[in-house]
Amino acid sequence: MIVVMRPDHTPEQVQAVMDRLVMFGLQGQPIRGVEREVIAGLGQVMQEHRDEISMMAGVDEVIRVSKPYKLSSRETHPKDTIVELPHGVKVGGGHPVFMAGPCAIEGEDQILAAARGVKKAGAHVLRGGAFKPRTSPYSFQGLGLDALKLLRQAGDEVGLPVITECLSVRDVDVCAEYSDVLQIGARNMQNFVLLQEAGKTGKPVLLKRGMSATIEEWLLASEYVMSQNNPNLILCERGIRTFETAIRNTLDLNAVALVKRLSHLPVIADPSHGTGKWYLVRPMSMAALAAGADGLMIEVHPNPDHALSDGAQSLTPNNFGDLANEARRLGEALSRPFAEPPASVASGA
Amino acid sequence: MIVVMRPDHTPEQVQAVMDRLVMFGLQGQPIRGVEREVIAGLGQVMQEHRDEISMMAGVDEVIRVSKPYKLSSRETHPKDTIVELPHGVKVGGGHPVFMAGPCAIEGEDQILAAARGVKKAGAHVLRGGAFKPRTSPYSFQGLGLDALKLLRQAGDEVGLPVITECLSVRDVDVCAEYSDVLQIGARNMQNFVLLQEAGKTGKPVLLKRGMSATIEEWLLASEYVMSQNNPNLILCERGIRTFETAIRNTLDLNAVALVKRLSHLPVIADPSHGTGKWYLVRPMSMAALAAGADGLMIEVHPNPDHALSDGAQSLTPNNFGDLANEARRLGEALSRPFAEPPASVASGA
Amino acid sequence: MIVVMRPDHTPEQVQAVMDRLVMFGLQGQPIRGVEREVIAGLGQVMQEHRDEISMMAGVDEVIRVSKPYKLSSRETHPKDTIVELPHGVKVGGGHPVFMAGPCAIEGEDQILAAARGVKKAGAHVLRGGAFKPRTSPYSFQGLGLDALKLLRQAGDEVGLPVITECLSVRDVDVCAEYSDVLQIGARNMQNFVLLQEAGKTGKPVLLKRGMSATIEEWLLASEYVMSQNNPNLILCERGIRTFETAIRNTLDLNAVALVKRLSHLPVIADPSHGTGKWYLVRPMSMAALAAGADGLMIEVHPNPDHALSDGAQSLTPNNFGDLANEARRLGEALSRPFAEPPASVASGA
Amino acid sequence: MIVVMRPDHTPEQVQAVMDRLVMFGLQGQPIRGVEREVIAGLGQVMQEHRDEISMMAGVDEVIRVSKPYKLSSRETHPKDTIVELPHGVKVGGGHPVFMAGPCAIEGEDQILAAARGVKKAGAHVLRGGAFKPRTSPYSFQGLGLDALKLLRQAGDEVGLPVITECLSVRDVDVCAEYSDVLQIGARNMQNFVLLQEAGKTGKPVLLKRGMSATIEEWLLASEYVMSQNNPNLILCERGIRTFETAIRNTLDLNAVALVKRLSHLPVIADPSHGTGKWYLVRPMSMAALAAGADGLMIEVHPNPDHALSDGAQSLTPNNFGDLANEARRLGEALSRPFAEPPASVASGA
Repeated sequence: MIVVMRPDHTPEQVQAVMDRLVMFGLQGQPIRGVEREVIAGLGQVMQEHRDEISMMAGVDEVIRVSKPYKLSSRETHPKDTIVELPHGVKVGGGHPVFMAGPCAIEGEDQILAAARGVKKAGAHVLRGGAFKPRTSPYSFQGLGLDALKLLRQAGDEVGLPVITECLSVRDVDVCAEYSDVLQIGARNMQNFVLLQEAGKTGKPVLLKRGMSATIEEWLLASEYVMSQNNPNLILCERGIRTFETAIRNTLDLNAVALVKRLSHLPVIADPSHGTGKWYLVRPMSMAALAAGADGLMIEVHPNPDHALSDGAQSLTPNNFGDLANEARRLGEALSRPFAEPPASVASGA
Repeated sequence: MIVVMRPDHTPEQVQAVMDRLVMFGLQGQPIRGVEREVIAGLGQVMQEHRDEISMMAGVDEVIRVSKPYKLSSRETHPKDTIVELPHGVKVGGGHPVFMAGPCAIEGEDQILAAARGVKKAGAHVLRGGAFKPRTSPYSFQGLGLDALKLLRQAGDEVGLPVITECLSVRDVDVCAEYSDVLQIGARNMQNFVLLQEAGKTGKPVLLKRGMSATIEEWLLASEYVMSQNNPNLILCERGIRTFETAIRNTLDLNAVALVKRLSHLPVIADPSHGTGKWYLVRPMSMAALAAGADGLMIEVHPNPDHALSDGAQSLTPNNFGDLANEARRLGEALSRPFAEPPASVASGA
Repeated sequence: MIVVMRPDHTPEQVQAVMDRLVMFGLQGQPIRGVEREVIAGLGQVMQEHRDEISMMAGVDEVIRVSKPYKLSSRETHPKDTIVELPHGVKVGGGHPVFMAGPCAIEGEDQILAAARGVKKAGAHVLRGGAFKPRTSPYSFQGLGLDALKLLRQAGDEVGLPVITECLSVRDVDVCAEYSDVLQIGARNMQNFVLLQEAGKTGKPVLLKRGMSATIEEWLLASEYVMSQNNPNLILCERGIRTFETAIRNTLDLNAVALVKRLSHLPVIADPSHGTGKWYLVRPMSMAALAAGADGLMIEVHPNPDHALSDGAQSLTPNNFGDLANEARRLGEALSRPFAEPPASVASGA
Repeated sequence: MIVVMRPDHTPEQVQAVMDRLVMFGLQGQPIRGVEREVIAGLGQVMQEHRDEISMMAGVDEVIRVSKPYKLSSRETHPKDTIVELPHGVKVGGGHPVFMAGPCAIEGEDQILAAARGVKKAGAHVLRGGAFKPRTSPYSFQGLGLDALKLLRQAGDEVGLPVITECLSVRDVDVCAEYSDVLQIGARNMQNFVLLQEAGKTGKPVLLKRGMSATIEEWLLASEYVMSQNNPNLILCERGIRTFETAIRNTLDLNAVALVKRLSHLPVIADPSHGTGKWYLVRPMSMAALAAGADGLMIEVHPNPDHALSDGAQSLTPNNFGDLANEARRLGEALSRPFAEPPASVASGA
């Protein structure tokens, strides 16, 4: 760390900082600039050290130098992590994948129709929500365990691994029983107990970025999972909160490009939640791939418009198929062709 | 809700929207403006209704008119809620209170010294962290149950109710056993399962605003607690995340003033976390009271500077005493004098 | 507009709103919902009308329905605008272009080397800064008129149209004399006098989005230029300000995709300023094209590293050439191939 | 500056950085930590130096240590600046003042009624807009020179100094002729040419914070005025742009408290624009004073509700009088009593 002293500091205050550094098992090295005196604090610097030093007399500010995340850093692990899922699906390593399916599982027919539709269009993973995090307690909260079983059954029938969101530590076990990947949602990115429990299951975890989480906080949250001896982590950018109100969230593709550089973990993007507008899903899917994403998570409704009269405005399995075709052409042009999707299940699909 | 049609919509699309509204048990009323046609959707409108309508053909956007929160709204409950705590402490109703104590409980001597210090300065509630939500898994995570017991003991000794943060559903019971108020931290504001479990204990709950939560989301989160038949909710503004980096968070006093108007719930402010700078705690405490806060939550360290040489830069019990004196003068000038603090315990303090 | 009344409003207050609407030449239509009463205000609604109504007794809020921008809206002008520049360059209409060159013009050799380099790599427009907007008055402010002349000369020599930023109304004439496009920077996006003066020159104008401007404000700012009978407007996304600090700005590609839908104007992206990190320029360039951008503005230094030992970290003409090759492949895959660059000048290049 | 090297840097890259520092007239001092090697760059470091170094091979990031603003810093000028206006009004130095009047000057009767009203309530400065910065070109743009003359006349009649916003370099002279203070609006905070021209007039300048300007950028903008040998600068916080939409802007009182510490310049607050809600003006005015503001700028309408039936919802001169009374009581409680307002003009008021 770099300790910047106030212009009006005294030699005694410098000495007190030097002494405190020694107490922390660190080494201090004072440097006198033209306008400022700074002290370099060398050694294993912890957050607590910086916090305490920053409150000392004569200290103006304390600047961190080392990166606080370790297990997720590309510095310590240069090679891309590849997370292996059932049916031979691999996430990471240069071949993007599609995860697709409905936002919420509404019933057997719906999830099965969705599963068949996305399978046919070339998806690699089937997604579907069983437990829904709703801003209001007066909204539909999901079908819970019943939905989990339907998701598992639909995935097995078409031959796709499945992913669902796990909302609470008390649901971790049942999610791990029925789902191939545990999704941690944006609102729970800093629910550290949940991260640890999900990590302990050994199952692959998909960690969405919190809507106001910095990239550094996101990577630190990933350490809560990985420090449980669980290297099978997938990151997912799903839009951040900014001042702009024309779009529900601001899908932050800068984060995708930067995290590919800072970390070895696979990063996918969720343009459906990231934009909240069906007509932005296609262009932002292409943009996410071009920025370096290892995959896309796309909301697909078997029948988005109940009146059946139009439906063109939401992502039906057919529209998703068009999107997937364009994405595959893009992957080729970028020398990052999509991974082969799982083969069809003989009897089921 | 107001459904705004696209300029190029067809009469069939208007009819489809009208039909869908009827399906939802709502009534539709078309209104033709100069540039736009809109349809007013009247009745008990749910989030799901708006979401579905917004995806229909010919629809440009859907605007909500009613407030989504009910139990916390002043419209349905005009009178100020007063939350009653042990030792006769009342939060809300026009008489501000102080909640004070260390960020983390480090040991018996520390919490007892803090308790005596803040009691002497006129605090109404003793705060202290047993479980700590840390951004990094490599930081100190708190002493847990041992700390909870020390907090209880210190509160009893000096005669103050105590408050501590509850991090996870699995800790709700033990927190409710030892603490008079369950604090839900900013990172957990949308941990809806935790909110419900905390609500079910019947204990008073203090709900901090998430660092990127809108005021509406904050009030909606409060409904998760209150809908468990628990009206004893205290809101706490602790700073939002903005582009500004000179200050850790931006304590949003506009929210304090606005929530006092929108809701009947008591609202306190936490300038210690809200600013992250010891030297901003005093001015922002005064500002929070002037904006209408029902109390202040202040971090007080019995001995902030280990070297004992200075200590002046952090909030010691003595400095907190000065702050409390100024706050009381301000309360008088604003015709909102502070509540009487609990009487001293005969044998203990 | 939709006027939402407070729950406790009186019939007299509704009448007063209705009367005021008539005063404004508007028509009022009351609608009674279950929880709220609203009044639709129909006619040519102005900002001033909404502001006044929102301050009336009994009024809770006023919601706008019509889009406030007109000339830039795709609703009134469905066909893509194509801005024509010298040397046969066309911006907009489905064939992306490159605008490339140094951030600041430092001297004749530098700008000429840059011009030759970017021309060779296939650029369509030469950019270079003569007047620099610097956050600090103690930073280099640009060479001014001398730089303008050098830019003109370099563009003529290699056969490329040139673009430069115009900082102030007092420089509009000289910029229009020497430059083919007048660039309005992000900090001046709401310098309305400058927008009008730039518009009056009749020259094509490139309007960068302000770093905290909403998409709506950006389109409204474009109306200041276009209302001077100047339809030759190019929009440029260059990154917005968010809470994230790992990247200088957050290049907002959602805005690119959305503006292509809302407006007929060409939209280009500036990943160099948008990210502030040389290693993010390539991925974010590809992402911008995939999101629908009509072109890229790229900072290219003829010799970014003075020591000549490395240079690999910044965008040299060679690296820009690689980026351009990848971008052209991407354009083909997206069925939006790049426009032909201007032919070489026989005697000059 | 502190240059942080990448973990995989080479000794040659360190040497190249050291050499470049020497080229810049700076001195380099390498420091080897446990995880990182850093180089302290000592001397007169400029932005350009940091930018160039940050692009060199092997460099991870460059951290600034010194504060970039000089003239506005309390470090170099510990004593509070007091800006003197006509009629004996002093801004800064511990005695708050009121600046009050209508947003836009609409006519002689209106501005004169406002002037008399605010004078009677104890205002120190009369404000009024002649040139209005409007987001849309289709909104009312102000009466211009005619309004300036009316403002001057009204101020003279009641004996108050006047302030108005100057929108463009071409209006600086006429604003300086008629107004006692030149206001630079939030949208122009980084219109550097305007700042310099306003500074050159020698007239006191009031500089509003840009809606997404950091505190550092605000102080740097102030240097553009002060470096014209014009020390008469007043800062004004008027709300920043955040994700929150319930309030038009987020009045940032943290900035008021922090700038009072960082700078010697007077800082006032504008709760009218800062919140955009008439009912938040009173509480946020009190909060601003409690945070340390040297004054308040308040919008007062002589007759806000044309229907004359109510008017209670906006700030009339009478309501402003009540606010002023409470503010004066608060000033006393905070030991910062308001400055005496100018005496009445014998014949005029």
